[in-house]
Amino acid sequence: MADSATLLISCPDKRGLVASITDFIFKHEGNILHLDQYVDVEDNIFFMRVEWDLANFKIWRQDIEGAFQPLADSFEMRWQLHFSDKTPRMAIFVSKQSHCLYDILSRWQSGEFNVEIPLIISNHPNLQSVAEQFNIPYHIFQITKETKAQQEQAQRELLENYNVDFIVLARYMQIITDDFVSHYPQNIINIHHSFLPAFVGARPYHQAYARGVKIIGATSHYVTAELDAGPIIEQDVTRVTHQDSVKDMVRKGKDLEKSVLSRAIWYHLQNRILVYNNKTVVFH
Amino acid sequence: MADSATLLISCPDKRGLVASITDFIFKHEGNILHLDQYVDVEDNIFFMRVEWDLANFKIWRQDIEGAFQPLADSFEMRWQLHFSDKTPRMAIFVSKQSHCLYDILSRWQSGEFNVEIPLIISNHPNLQSVAEQFNIPYHIFQITKETKAQQEQAQRELLENYNVDFIVLARYMQIITDDFVSHYPQNIINIHHSFLPAFVGARPYHQAYARGVKIIGATSHYVTAELDAGPIIEQDVTRVTHQDSVKDMVRKGKDLEKSVLSRAIWYHLQNRILVYNNKTVVFH
Amino acid sequence: MADSATLLISCPDKRGLVASITDFIFKHEGNILHLDQYVDVEDNIFFMRVEWDLANFKIWRQDIEGAFQPLADSFEMRWQLHFSDKTPRMAIFVSKQSHCLYDILSRWQSGEFNVEIPLIISNHPNLQSVAEQFNIPYHIFQITKETKAQQEQAQRELLENYNVDFIVLARYMQIITDDFVSHYPQNIINIHHSFLPAFVGARPYHQAYARGVKIIGATSHYVTAELDAGPIIEQDVTRVTHQDSVKDMVRKGKDLEKSVLSRAIWYHLQNRILVYNNKTVVFH
Amino acid sequence: MADSATLLISCPDKRGLVASITDFIFKHEGNILHLDQYVDVEDNIFFMRVEWDLANFKIWRQDIEGAFQPLADSFEMRWQLHFSDKTPRMAIFVSKQSHCLYDILSRWQSGEFNVEIPLIISNHPNLQSVAEQFNIPYHIFQITKETKAQQEQAQRELLENYNVDFIVLARYMQIITDDFVSHYPQNIINIHHSFLPAFVGARPYHQAYARGVKIIGATSHYVTAELDAGPIIEQDVTRVTHQDSVKDMVRKGKDLEKSVLSRAIWYHLQNRILVYNNKTVVFH
Repeated sequence: MADSATLLISCPDKRGLVASITDFIFKHEGNILHLDQYVDVEDNIFFMRVEWDLANFKIWRQDIEGAFQPLADSFEMRWQLHFSDKTPRMAIFVSKQSHCLYDILSRWQSGEFNVEIPLIISNHPNLQSVAEQFNIPYHIFQITKETKAQQEQAQRELLENYNVDFIVLARYMQIITDDFVSHYPQNIINIHHSFLPAFVGARPYHQAYARGVKIIGATSHYVTAELDAGPIIEQDVTRVTHQDSVKDMVRKGKDLEKSVLSRAIWYHLQNRILVYNNKTVVFH
Repeated sequence: MADSATLLISCPDKRGLVASITDFIFKHEGNILHLDQYVDVEDNIFFMRVEWDLANFKIWRQDIEGAFQPLADSFEMRWQLHFSDKTPRMAIFVSKQSHCLYDILSRWQSGEFNVEIPLIISNHPNLQSVAEQFNIPYHIFQITKETKAQQEQAQRELLENYNVDFIVLARYMQIITDDFVSHYPQNIINIHHSFLPAFVGARPYHQAYARGVKIIGATSHYVTAELDAGPIIEQDVTRVTHQDSVKDMVRKGKDLEKSVLSRAIWYHLQNRILVYNNKTVVFH
Repeated sequence: MADSATLLISCPDKRGLVASITDFIFKHEGNILHLDQYVDVEDNIFFMRVEWDLANFKIWRQDIEGAFQPLADSFEMRWQLHFSDKTPRMAIFVSKQSHCLYDILSRWQSGEFNVEIPLIISNHPNLQSVAEQFNIPYHIFQITKETKAQQEQAQRELLENYNVDFIVLARYMQIITDDFVSHYPQNIINIHHSFLPAFVGARPYHQAYARGVKIIGATSHYVTAELDAGPIIEQDVTRVTHQDSVKDMVRKGKDLEKSVLSRAIWYHLQNRILVYNNKTVVFH
Repeated sequence: MADSATLLISCPDKRGLVASITDFIFKHEGNILHLDQYVDVEDNIFFMRVEWDLANFKIWRQDIEGAFQPLADSFEMRWQLHFSDKTPRMAIFVSKQSHCLYDILSRWQSGEFNVEIPLIISNHPNLQSVAEQFNIPYHIFQITKETKAQQEQAQRELLENYNVDFIVLARYMQIITDDFVSHYPQNIINIHHSFLPAFVGARPYHQAYARGVKIIGATSHYVTAELDAGPIIEQDVTRVTHQDSVKDMVRKGKDLEKSVLSRAIWYHLQNRILVYNNKTVVFH
């Protein structure tokens, strides 16, 4: 596979957008591999993801941004440019439960995730041995009300030292402060163990059991200042019956959490997600 | 198919319950067709549904209740006895949308639902022609704040005249008063167009669109005094993406509403539902 | 809603395709409403569906084909052009079961399907009354081995007289001859009551029961010369357990058949389906 | 949790079965925790799973079999008795793919599976390091046509030395001989990467891609002499579109394979599966 470039674009909708963007690629002899676009008619916003082959592209990689800028300006685009051979760096935050962590690490080790995992951060020592199984540094930050601000500061320094691009909260049972979140906008992915917006907050399986629902779910979303209210990336559900105790729901729910979180990571790694109005466009 | 009897039982859990109940059936030469039981271990409640063939049963139908009463008393049972040859009578309440009504009537007409439908009640004239297609009386009760109490009183009299056993709200866009509900405990089935408890109240698809969920749902439940908070009978969901407008969600959601409501009716007709703690046991 | 035009295109993949097509629309002041494209990399085939607003489009409707032809030729396109204000005409073929027929007719009557239904054809009189409920002519063609060729000929004449564009087999329990099929290429939609390619042919629920599957399904596809082997448009499944008899599977399966067939019709009406290599591209 | 006993029973259906079995438990002061029963009406076979608390049971554990035998004989039962404190021993067979292996081992390590895993067997060295991560002996048996019989013989000796109760084929890409299978009747669980009976044999994702299905699946089943034709334990599916290449199907399918195989193992460990007529009764 040759290298490719991917543009992610959003801007006010206007006639000629697709024609102009695809013409830019075509006239420099790029071959489009994938093109997805979507218009939010109500809010008049245009979204696009276009990926093209760099093999015969007539602009040098380092000059593409500059070459595209005039077009971007003329349509007031917000845009990102990604190259397929740049491997992003992901930090994983965990607490005591291993199911999501194992799922992520086994996908990474088998090559399904094209990502580097320079470190795992936890507020508990429990999963140290899992990190060791995969030879990944494991950093413990015990957190109390008093130490939280200071510990988050230390975490941020560590993340910067490791050049981390984005963070995955793999059942990390700590609420992250707004200050921390503000340093990683749309770059912290969380998994919540309910089909949001139902059962926000603590112990969602207990809430689901008490309400007597016939379906439970899991939701991955970008973390924002408001708890469990960030833009939803992916959700999935499974059936339960009156026979399922809270313990059964936890067991069944773990499978949802694993797959929903891993799908969200995969979309993120593929640069398929655009965020607007606290919602996501996910190009499948 | 010969006639059968079905017992629905709930009581405090105690050793010997299954043995005693099945022995009652066995010693009078009944043949068990289906038996389901469940124990809520946390609350120590026993639930059972048992259906047996009446062909060789040695107690006359009219004497079964009396014969079972002593056993029921000794275990403090709440219980119901149903006979398969008694066809229940169902009233359907509608407003303007036809999809659930058509779905119910076509199942009834093809023999899938063993039920009588003596009347349809509506607050609008729109679906009169559908009722006429199926030769079912259609009664219109226009409702305003001022007339509500009086109109509900008139509806209740009509339902009594028609010997209605239970009511289905097939997208009836009126909130029913507590007084009305109290006359049909666990006998009013509603369909709500969201996966409850998410998106209670008005315009759930608009709420779902605004929140940016990736899955929408529908929920059928028994109506209680609190809005959209009664015991859930059945739920189902379908995927949506950023491409789905509110209008698309409405279209996809209608299919959910139809099938979820009809499954709830089917369970109810089969006497498979037991209610406790604002939850349901549904024996599949 | 103003009128729109939709182009469905397939051709050998080549650089510049998207740019050229969107430029054609742009330079004549059309505003793109939806654009989907897909490249089968293995077979090097390009597929596109693009829909644009005709409100300010500078080419008269009757001249669009001629204006587009040179571009189409230069890329060796196979293409169709559809206008949103042209309502297609659909014939429904049925036998004795009403569930799919009712589902289609109620969607049509509520305005979900933008289609005309000039007639229903059947090999049995059973569903005449349903047709009458909806005031649609119902034509009965009794079919035996001996009369088949002749009856199909008569059906074809009738369909031509009614200017029928496409046909839906809504549980029509007759195999259609290759000759008949050849007159409606990719314009006969069938529903088969299994998840094809499992359980081809007769009595698929019996086959599913005998095999002990835990999931049953339904499949809608375009009819081709080979039985149940045409391009699949849509599939869906539902869970079954050991408790489900063949009769239960039939009941559960009917719900699948209804929704899968109706979704296929909807995609067809929206001009979202392209066929190649006995497969479909369905732009969602 | 106190220890419990579980009876799995199948026999010709007869009046009095449930009463007799539950009376046996009741009169010796056992408390029933779970009871499931099912009658195949067509074949007149009765199935039951009953689990009861041993805390106050008046028969010593080693005497239960003898005490139950007369009742079992009188109804011609085939039956098994299991105790909750006996941990079964499971061997895992793998080839080169790690996803199912990791999924099983992480469930085992987190305590979700109450099982001992004394060894992993493979025909390739690739997954040795995974076995080492979890400190499980890894035995390599290279297999050619010539060596197969002899290698299977060596495998069987190893399994006997390790007192293995049952075997899981976690994407083991070798066909096992009838002779080997005959030594582990209903004790070899396989995962096949299609929704059987569709796409039997090699490369099912390639078959699915070629056929253009809109849903792919995975199936776990007990291995029998006929390839991919044993009693199905569990199945699941996921949607695909024209956009999914074979590689995408493989990626999505892995998630199905993991969860479907692990659910089958869980049912097996819980003694919830009864086999008859090449089908399974799985009490949920």
